[in-house]
Amino acid sequence: MVPVETLQKKINREIARRSAGLNARQPAELYAPIDYSLGMGGKRLRPVLLLMAFNLFSDEIEKALPAALAVEVFHNFTLLHDDIMDKAEVRRNNPTVHVKFGENNAILSGDAMAFLSYQYLLECRSERMFDVTNLFTKTAVEVCEGQQYDMDFENRLDVTEAEYLEMIRLKTAVLLGCSLQAGALLANAADETAEQLYNFGINLGMAFQLQDDWLDTFGDPQKFGKKIGGDIVANKKTYLLIAALEKAAEGTKSTLYKWLKATEFNAEEKINSVTEMYKQLGIKEITEAKIEYFFLRAAEILNQLPVNDLSKKHLIELSNNMLGRSS
Amino acid sequence: MVPVETLQKKINREIARRSAGLNARQPAELYAPIDYSLGMGGKRLRPVLLLMAFNLFSDEIEKALPAALAVEVFHNFTLLHDDIMDKAEVRRNNPTVHVKFGENNAILSGDAMAFLSYQYLLECRSERMFDVTNLFTKTAVEVCEGQQYDMDFENRLDVTEAEYLEMIRLKTAVLLGCSLQAGALLANAADETAEQLYNFGINLGMAFQLQDDWLDTFGDPQKFGKKIGGDIVANKKTYLLIAALEKAAEGTKSTLYKWLKATEFNAEEKINSVTEMYKQLGIKEITEAKIEYFFLRAAEILNQLPVNDLSKKHLIELSNNMLGRSS
Repeated sequence: MVPVETLQKKINREIARRSAGLNARQPAELYAPIDYSLGMGGKRLRPVLLLMAFNLFSDEIEKALPAALAVEVFHNFTLLHDDIMDKAEVRRNNPTVHVKFGENNAILSGDAMAFLSYQYLLECRSERMFDVTNLFTKTAVEVCEGQQYDMDFENRLDVTEAEYLEMIRLKTAVLLGCSLQAGALLANAADETAEQLYNFGINLGMAFQLQDDWLDTFGDPQKFGKKIGGDIVANKKTYLLIAALEKAAEGTKSTLYKWLKATEFNAEEKINSVTEMYKQLGIKEITEAKIEYFFLRAAEILNQLPVNDLSKKHLIELSNNMLGRSS
Repeated sequence: MVPVETLQKKINREIARRSAGLNARQPAELYAPIDYSLGMGGKRLRPVLLLMAFNLFSDEIEKALPAALAVEVFHNFTLLHDDIMDKAEVRRNNPTVHVKFGENNAILSGDAMAFLSYQYLLECRSERMFDVTNLFTKTAVEVCEGQQYDMDFENRLDVTEAEYLEMIRLKTAVLLGCSLQAGALLANAADETAEQLYNFGINLGMAFQLQDDWLDTFGDPQKFGKKIGGDIVANKKTYLLIAALEKAAEGTKSTLYKWLKATEFNAEEKINSVTEMYKQLGIKEITEAKIEYFFLRAAEILNQLPVNDLSKKHLIELSNNMLGRSS
């Protein structure tokens, strides 16, 4: 089994190698934002998962590299367009694509990335390509659905926990599941095994996204990277807020509503007040229990996977790492 | 051979049949703009071409119907995003998607349509699916390149004829070529024959786009549908303007520049003045000769196609129809 860091390096090396090619393509105005977006770095989580799943069944990792890049390019395409819709100005400490290159260019370069991801995917010559392309396409549609739900939730105060979980399944989890399943299929694993890996990815993705919500309020400011409380300031419909709205009695609820409707406020004060409410309602522990629930389901699926324990080791390590646990 | 009108009806019936399914999909905010866009009508030129090419080699037209819808959905996706970039407010006498549903929804529903077009395409079960998906993907990237060139040209006064022709090849012609080639491949035609149909489509597309430029200035207001002179008012870099800038002597050129730079002007006056200049420079005839050049190349390729004359009849009719000629 190839360790995670080696896979990340392989992916970054391949992105760098192709960067020259992208920059040589015309029109430059279309390809420069694509290269900029891919060059911003990041954990390369999705391509790593794809290669790890592939590596469970085959050592010829190079064969799956184009598909690994495809899921990364697709993921970056969603970031480009989401950042326009969310009017986000900074990503990974850099100006977002639409800020740097203009909104029209971000729309169009994003579109080109969507098709570029298919171009990379189709470079793989596997007898399972039809299944992989179908899976990738179904996933892409679902990710759009997830983003739409996320936008719809902005204007709603009555989002249920079930609706929220379905939204993050679509927006985040399915692409992790797809990466794992595609990796397995490309290595010619059995259909059932590839599906198990998909389900592992779904549960891992759910835990991962819930933890992202948790960290934004309860995380360690030193380690978090972003400012703590951003979600609270922006009224983001996180698992925390939805659970709080479901659990709060009338008095607490109206204070919460007051903060949600406030147009002028001191950010620090709002963060402290809402965080305190979360603590009193036990939202911290409720969220932790939910993360644990999905993490354990992921671990159980992994446990039942018909590959040897040594091969699973890196997937377990990566899962622990993603969720900030020591293994 | 199935006549064009029958094919159009088949396509519209299939779009209507799937409309209920699209409207049942959730979230409604994602699918309503898609259904709206596909329901706006239009000539369904690309799916008709796909089915006609298929029908040259097979009578089982139903088998190619999902692929025909795929190229139509893809085409409508490009319209959605182009209309945002161009700030266009009306299309086919209806408010554009971003005007009716908001810009974010137009971006996201457009994205979903891009993937939906793959979903439709992959419904076809042909042994040539890999080739067809590759062709479709290559074409999609090229269409993005074409749109980028078109946007770049807005800020340039030195666009050459060769650059312009390459832009319309990418933005318009390749999708016609792709539709024809995909139809042939799905019917299991020989690779070489499918490529001939691609080249036929390219030349037909070039003639078609040049005629669109010609019509906007010299068309019959009764038949044209849009207001004559829109391109002139908007300083659009059409074949006419580019040819005029290449051909005009200094005096005429500076008058042309004056109009291009004017921010306040009487539209009627600008249209009349520029049209008069075009006429004096012989731009009308130059453009007609260029249209004829591509039309004849298309006809010649069709002539050499290894299918019987009766089968070609409808393609010839459609070409004449597209270019407003009586056959």
